[in-house]
Amino acid sequence: MQIDTLVKSPGCWLSMREDTGIVVSSRVRLARNIRDVAFPGWAGEGERVRVCRELRAVFDRTETMAGSLFLDMSELTALDKEILKERHLISHELAEKGAGSGLIVSEDEGISVMINEEDHLRMQAITPGMHLEEIWHGLDLLDSEVERGVGFAFDGRLGYLTACPSNVGTGLRASVMMHLSGLKLLDEAQAVINGLERIGLAVRGLLGEGTEASGNMFQISNQSTLGRSEGEIIAQLVCVVGDLVDHERHARARLFQQRRTFLVDHIGRAIGVALHARILSSREAVDLLSALRLGVDFGFITNLKARQINEIMLLTQPGHLQKMCNRILGPEERDQMRAGLLRDRLGEVKLRE
Amino acid sequence: MQIDTLVKSPGCWLSMREDTGIVVSSRVRLARNIRDVAFPGWAGEGERVRVCRELRAVFDRTETMAGSLFLDMSELTALDKEILKERHLISHELAEKGAGSGLIVSEDEGISVMINEEDHLRMQAITPGMHLEEIWHGLDLLDSEVERGVGFAFDGRLGYLTACPSNVGTGLRASVMMHLSGLKLLDEAQAVINGLERIGLAVRGLLGEGTEASGNMFQISNQSTLGRSEGEIIAQLVCVVGDLVDHERHARARLFQQRRTFLVDHIGRAIGVALHARILSSREAVDLLSALRLGVDFGFITNLKARQINEIMLLTQPGHLQKMCNRILGPEERDQMRAGLLRDRLGEVKLRE
Repeated sequence: MQIDTLVKSPGCWLSMREDTGIVVSSRVRLARNIRDVAFPGWAGEGERVRVCRELRAVFDRTETMAGSLFLDMSELTALDKEILKERHLISHELAEKGAGSGLIVSEDEGISVMINEEDHLRMQAITPGMHLEEIWHGLDLLDSEVERGVGFAFDGRLGYLTACPSNVGTGLRASVMMHLSGLKLLDEAQAVINGLERIGLAVRGLLGEGTEASGNMFQISNQSTLGRSEGEIIAQLVCVVGDLVDHERHARARLFQQRRTFLVDHIGRAIGVALHARILSSREAVDLLSALRLGVDFGFITNLKARQINEIMLLTQPGHLQKMCNRILGPEERDQMRAGLLRDRLGEVKLRE
Repeated sequence: MQIDTLVKSPGCWLSMREDTGIVVSSRVRLARNIRDVAFPGWAGEGERVRVCRELRAVFDRTETMAGSLFLDMSELTALDKEILKERHLISHELAEKGAGSGLIVSEDEGISVMINEEDHLRMQAITPGMHLEEIWHGLDLLDSEVERGVGFAFDGRLGYLTACPSNVGTGLRASVMMHLSGLKLLDEAQAVINGLERIGLAVRGLLGEGTEASGNMFQISNQSTLGRSEGEIIAQLVCVVGDLVDHERHARARLFQQRRTFLVDHIGRAIGVALHARILSSREAVDLLSALRLGVDFGFITNLKARQINEIMLLTQPGHLQKMCNRILGPEERDQMRAGLLRDRLGEVKLRE
């Protein structure tokens, strides 16, 4: 499989399988390093290349990842890297690296492994909907398979050792992407976020660390990886997410019952602009798609599926837009292409009150 | 004729006759006072009532205004006054007055006379499109007819005397309402306005003195009434308006040739929001209608006429909305009614590139 196949594949986790509701996706990642080998930030290029080769071989011998695609950071174009970032398969940091750093990714993109990012290994499982426990079990299995082939840096007292102290211990980061537009429309999202941060969870935007919540998408993850078992971390997040879903449902019920015109206005305007705009920024597009998603969730829009919205959200990002027309586009051209794509894909969308 | 007839009449100057382009309407008014009678602000109620009765009789004897509707300010509801203001037939000041103040208005609303506003008489002629000279001649004729029946306060050196020094001399205010959305979209309107103000013209918003320009509508009028003849005042305004029309046409040509996508985006979004919003403020409605008007002028919208837009602009104002459903509406209800009216009236509007 080549990157072009991957890009054209409809098997991307974001558009596949189920129609997601409030929880758009679940993600788990494990940070691991090889025992007695310098962390990537301290190793020379030769050592990083050697480690990468060895790790590829280890993954090739696992049942989970055998035959997966490997992408070498030194061989990818800037655009390909952009696309992988937009698909949540690589981080900004990995994209900056060259020889000796790469990505192993399963055909459905559900499991991916960054080699020589900040740590030797960053293994990720991602899936649409709320399935934290399932994907954690899958990733735990892969972790055990890998550990049979390579010794991990581990301290009896601290746990797994990582380049950044914030990952020491379990090396586990579990996160969910939630679509909290009910709370946002009622101006209650900030209070909820503050509450989450007080109990030690991190809240980020659609594109991860350092990004603002756009399109009413919030990524919620554990901050601490130390002092608790993997099971406890996952269980806390599952519990909090359950509460958040209840909060969001309650907000939506209030919108529907008490502020229906406001709600329909919000969704209707998004349809109107999506069908008629000729210029759309990334930011505005996700905001419109968020409103359409809410329309689908409420049943005001019946001829559109949440997974189609997920797909449009992916395809309208700058890298994907450029890949689609096979050339580098300036920001203005992208904004026009994006508007065209929304009109094409949403041409039949109607509001039913 | 009663006020209800007037309100329901399609003969209102704003929606009648021609499809207006850049110059939406022309208006001329004359301030006059009766010789040796106290100005309305100094007169007692009894005197104002007497003056009003006498003036009505004078107008009834003119060829122009015989048989016209008279509306007594003390007999009108707040809502009726609101409607008359929205139709540019009375001022905010006249609406505040009671017995002894009133309005005489011709059937097509093209000529109207406020009695006992700030001056004893404020006679106005208004018409769609650019017809300053024509309506000035009509109003001049009425002025002469009235002067045969009543002596005006006049000073050989100063000219006609008025309550406010700013009207002394000719008592003439000529104005045009212009739709300068090309200049506005190119961010050049402010420079043009500054230029107009430097040559002694006043620039106001859609609803006259003290209002902001909304919907890219600018009312341009002479400031000084003294030291020049009526003909000179009109001629200057005609000349300036001609220049402004050229400026605006040039701006539109640049938009069409150099920024077509931006232009189509602007018009398309307005269509999208107009057809889908459930809540619309007055301000947003006129902005949308301004964009639609531009779409009509450019031929991007073919199944809509400028006069229909003028009519919607009038009907979506708070007073007219309330008159249509015969009850007082709160601001939220009005915003919903307004959105409904736009959807109804614009249902068939499509963008053709």
